[in-house]
Amino acid sequence: MPEVNAYAIDSPTGRYEKTTITRREPGPTEVYFDIAYAGICHSDIHTARGEWGKTLYPLVAGHEIAGVVSKVGSEVTKFKVGDRVGVGCFVDSCGECDMCQDGEEQFCTNRERGTVGTYNAIGRDGEPTAGGYSQAITVEQNYLMHIPDEMSLEHAAPLMCAGITTYSPLKHWGAGPGKKVAVIGLGGLGHVAVQLAAKMGAEVTAFGRTLAKRDDGLKLGATDYVATQDIDAMKKLRNTFDIVVSTISDGVELDTLIGLTRPHGVVVNLGLPSDGKATFSLGRLINGNRVIAGSNIGGIPETQEMLDFCADNDVRPIVEIIPADEINEAYDNVVNSKVRYRYVIDTSTMG
Amino acid sequence: MPEVNAYAIDSPTGRYEKTTITRREPGPTEVYFDIAYAGICHSDIHTARGEWGKTLYPLVAGHEIAGVVSKVGSEVTKFKVGDRVGVGCFVDSCGECDMCQDGEEQFCTNRERGTVGTYNAIGRDGEPTAGGYSQAITVEQNYLMHIPDEMSLEHAAPLMCAGITTYSPLKHWGAGPGKKVAVIGLGGLGHVAVQLAAKMGAEVTAFGRTLAKRDDGLKLGATDYVATQDIDAMKKLRNTFDIVVSTISDGVELDTLIGLTRPHGVVVNLGLPSDGKATFSLGRLINGNRVIAGSNIGGIPETQEMLDFCADNDVRPIVEIIPADEINEAYDNVVNSKVRYRYVIDTSTMG
Repeated sequence: MPEVNAYAIDSPTGRYEKTTITRREPGPTEVYFDIAYAGICHSDIHTARGEWGKTLYPLVAGHEIAGVVSKVGSEVTKFKVGDRVGVGCFVDSCGECDMCQDGEEQFCTNRERGTVGTYNAIGRDGEPTAGGYSQAITVEQNYLMHIPDEMSLEHAAPLMCAGITTYSPLKHWGAGPGKKVAVIGLGGLGHVAVQLAAKMGAEVTAFGRTLAKRDDGLKLGATDYVATQDIDAMKKLRNTFDIVVSTISDGVELDTLIGLTRPHGVVVNLGLPSDGKATFSLGRLINGNRVIAGSNIGGIPETQEMLDFCADNDVRPIVEIIPADEINEAYDNVVNSKVRYRYVIDTSTMG
Repeated sequence: MPEVNAYAIDSPTGRYEKTTITRREPGPTEVYFDIAYAGICHSDIHTARGEWGKTLYPLVAGHEIAGVVSKVGSEVTKFKVGDRVGVGCFVDSCGECDMCQDGEEQFCTNRERGTVGTYNAIGRDGEPTAGGYSQAITVEQNYLMHIPDEMSLEHAAPLMCAGITTYSPLKHWGAGPGKKVAVIGLGGLGHVAVQLAAKMGAEVTAFGRTLAKRDDGLKLGATDYVATQDIDAMKKLRNTFDIVVSTISDGVELDTLIGLTRPHGVVVNLGLPSDGKATFSLGRLINGNRVIAGSNIGGIPETQEMLDFCADNDVRPIVEIIPADEINEAYDNVVNSKVRYRYVIDTSTMG
């Protein structure tokens, strides 16, 4: 049973501290890999700070993980030692239900052994799962992705959540040539969504609260950048977009987003406000056959597809690599929108 | 300028009274036809009673119209005298914008001469439009449908709104073999939706407030009928349906409807509550990639397609034919859910 260094937090108001955790020896179909980088996702913060229901402390967060395989079980066929691999938001599911069979393991319908989160869940060994803020992890081979050669590990890490969360709805709702896409919020998700939609061939407009990130938005592939505070500019864009991807959790009314769509347009809502509720005017939705859609990450096949798409089309998150002892400060910066655009922990700094 | 008998109402609290109105002579591309039947839609009541914004009085409502052509303009190519024809919720649009070119004239984007309602709008002659509660009407040929030979005029009439309103979203969202469809509310729309979904090949469950209409629901093609008041039965059906078509405007929470859908499922909302607002939990939508969709009637090509589908598949509304002097009483019965299932005015009773 390998012991590895990790960073854990032990209460909603605590701070991440260095510790060691035990990983299980890989079973016959499991892979053990050395983690090189782990992205910091806003979900990590919500969970660490107890804002999303029950948190199992001590918590080792991190579901944007990239590393290199160092050990494989006797029946592993998909990976070998030395392979560059990634893990996203979940590490297990039943594998048998309709959803798992369809490659949508994130929606596993098995009530007893459904989707297992990469952290803050109970794993197949009966122990709480621990995520990427650590130096190694053991994962069933069916829940691992290959990282394409063209892509560095530090860029691959954030794509495991921020990439698939935006790729899946953009693809599902048809982002491509001839389509106009609005991306609301240029943060960890938004700055990837702008690139993805542009590389899919859509015409992209990025929206920030102000114009502070305008230059970045245009560099990432947007043809226009609009401040959501600019009421006149927002009015002019009514009935314009086929797809509005909202990566924010407050600050813009759902009715405003619906208003941006043309008939048959869709608002994809990825952000979750603290009370979890949304209110809108049904008339605006009905008149124009408009759509409000949720989207939650993606399954393993689509996550691999997303990585390959990003590698082939030069889509890369903008990362700031930090040592592990800066996680607490990084959390504050994420909450205060000071990050440009994704913190990635270099796990070699865990000593 | 033909004068025809009609029934009009002159204030939100008034009653329909017999009157005469003037129809224009058909222009070169217009058709003049004798109305045989006009369905009573709940929208007629909302408009007549001033519940949906400004109403132009005196109002001649009715947008579920069927009749026989008696005169055609010199350049009319699509219809001839004696043809059985129908008109739905609109009688004109610009014909040139993207939406019109796509056969979605109900979403015409032309700001100066957009979609013209069959009543309570200003027509191309500059006069208020008057609907089907009258003995004849003049309509541009591009906004008329052919009624298939197999279908009687009294059955065709309600389909012009209730039929297309339910057909369009069922088709768009993929009702068919292997799909489970829930129809909420067995009223004017719902009793057609159950038939359409079943004939499209889907497995249909109908939902009423109570089980009072159970036998009808099963006869119309539902394999199951559930009372929305039965909390246990509703709980058992969570995560079950691919498509939930809600034809009601209150009584069931949107969250409950979302809860009925399986991952990737859609709630199609056709009902508009008095305040026009809806509130829901974003988490339920996000987890499972669920969808809330609006839908507003359909364009001319799809309305024709719907009529042909109904003719070919023996889909017929259940109608109660009434004389014109019972319109006022019929309105009260619709509001009190006493109609089974659609009142249709026999315009020959207009004297």
